[in-house]
Amino acid sequence: MTNISKYVIGVDIGGTNVKLGLVDPRGKVLLRSSLATKHFGKSPEALIEAICEAVEALTGKNRLGKKDISGVGIGLPGLVDADKGVVRMLPNIPGWAEVPLRRIMERRLGLSVRIENDVNMITLGEWEYGAGKGIENLICMTMGTGVGAGLILNNAIYRGPGFAAGEIGHAPLHQKGPVCGCGGWGCFEQYVGNKRLQKDAARLFGKKDISLEDVSRRAAEGKKKALKFWAQVGETVGQGLIGPVNILNPERIIVGGGVARSLEFMKPAIEKVLKQRCMKTQAEMVRIVPALLGNDAGIIGAQVLIRHENKN
Amino acid sequence: MTNISKYVIGVDIGGTNVKLGLVDPRGKVLLRSSLATKHFGKSPEALIEAICEAVEALTGKNRLGKKDISGVGIGLPGLVDADKGVVRMLPNIPGWAEVPLRRIMERRLGLSVRIENDVNMITLGEWEYGAGKGIENLICMTMGTGVGAGLILNNAIYRGPGFAAGEIGHAPLHQKGPVCGCGGWGCFEQYVGNKRLQKDAARLFGKKDISLEDVSRRAAEGKKKALKFWAQVGETVGQGLIGPVNILNPERIIVGGGVARSLEFMKPAIEKVLKQRCMKTQAEMVRIVPALLGNDAGIIGAQVLIRHENKN
Repeated sequence: MTNISKYVIGVDIGGTNVKLGLVDPRGKVLLRSSLATKHFGKSPEALIEAICEAVEALTGKNRLGKKDISGVGIGLPGLVDADKGVVRMLPNIPGWAEVPLRRIMERRLGLSVRIENDVNMITLGEWEYGAGKGIENLICMTMGTGVGAGLILNNAIYRGPGFAAGEIGHAPLHQKGPVCGCGGWGCFEQYVGNKRLQKDAARLFGKKDISLEDVSRRAAEGKKKALKFWAQVGETVGQGLIGPVNILNPERIIVGGGVARSLEFMKPAIEKVLKQRCMKTQAEMVRIVPALLGNDAGIIGAQVLIRHENKN
Repeated sequence: MTNISKYVIGVDIGGTNVKLGLVDPRGKVLLRSSLATKHFGKSPEALIEAICEAVEALTGKNRLGKKDISGVGIGLPGLVDADKGVVRMLPNIPGWAEVPLRRIMERRLGLSVRIENDVNMITLGEWEYGAGKGIENLICMTMGTGVGAGLILNNAIYRGPGFAAGEIGHAPLHQKGPVCGCGGWGCFEQYVGNKRLQKDAARLFGKKDISLEDVSRRAAEGKKKALKFWAQVGETVGQGLIGPVNILNPERIIVGGGVARSLEFMKPAIEKVLKQRCMKTQAEMVRIVPALLGNDAGIIGAQVLIRHENKN
């Protein structure tokens, strides 16, 4: 197990930025860098080369050699074949279709590379070093423009045979409802995704440009309307979690993403719904907790992915 | 791996009958017997003793000794701690609470005993010898008075930390809806459980005592009203499966239970809903198939459970 003492480079590719970090054997991010995703045009080649240079810069700065790096873990916002190391499709970054990223980067860098869906990467980070430490069965839900989740089941990440599992944002809340980007309708995400929440907040406060951060600030100040807003969001979040909780019987639901900063205002309502409507065992076991690793979760998750891969 | 060549006694405890079977190493049921559950009163002791005697009778009849039996697998309709071998609670068989069934029967019989939830036992049987052969990720749904499911994920049964996973019948279809026995409301089971289907059929056909079997017979004869009935049930079943399919990305959904005999009439409607409303990868991968083992599934599943336990 000599790899345990080695460092990992974590790469978190998003639609706006690519974040990189050098992660030590205990999950601490020692060094960071970032790139602007769109700067590199519409074909993956230029972006991949820029990432490779950034990886080399990170190791160079810390005077590490290849022998000190146990691998590079890359999180991507889309469908990723983690076994074959192929990026199948990224909905928000054009040009990425069936890209054998692992092979390309391993050849270019001479390092072991693993790739993973970004939500799964966050889940791995929170599971090992964050809000899910020591928990064998959990849902790590990210709430932002989209609502997704990573699943830790029987003490392992559950990706599904098509690497598409965890889409709790696309379990319908209603049988009639707004059409969703996924092609379905009435999806959970349509009721608690950022766009909808911002619209709801604008209407409630009569201010077109109010941000969800503003509403959270008002809630923190004890303003009733803002507290009511988040309680109502919490009720809807609870409704969306009944099915996953009854089906998966998780011990923990970790809530991450921008909206998670307001979890304290939503939590009583979420818990009330789950207590009222979930089955007894499931309701008694589950705890709702905030994500702990913030923006570093994906980079730290890369370390977990590489470590687990090296064990096998 | 000498156990592979041994026989297993499968025991399927239901609210009405206890079914027993001697299962050979290839999953064939060689010999059967049964008991009337209620005949043995309200305390578990008498029923357990009767089951032990029936187990001994089954081995005796076939001139087998203890050395030929690798174990006894018992499926129970309720909450079962499969790790500790304790029956936590059986909603429809009074008197069973925190019964250390495994220990009691191992002492009494001098055989290795494993216990499991009955739906999980059916799932194990269908997975190994029935409609799920060779599939690493599947949902085995049973439709009857209740609607439940067993989950095979990453090539293993997923029980959940409280042994309560798989309750797809209690994922809500609607946020307002009929109150359910589980304490929640709007649950999938309330729309496709036998009671509701029988009511719907009685109303549609204007015949109070029409059975679901009657409606299936009429559908098989090509009667339009009956075909329409099952198509509508199929649509609702499809609605209830969108969430589980998007969350778990299963390759197969096996449909068992009494209503499954009408699956052929429901299947086009189920598939239409899943194709319309599930995410692309999930919709393309999933197949809806009927259970193949019928009433033997639980007994055959016991053989799978014992075999897998002996491997560990």
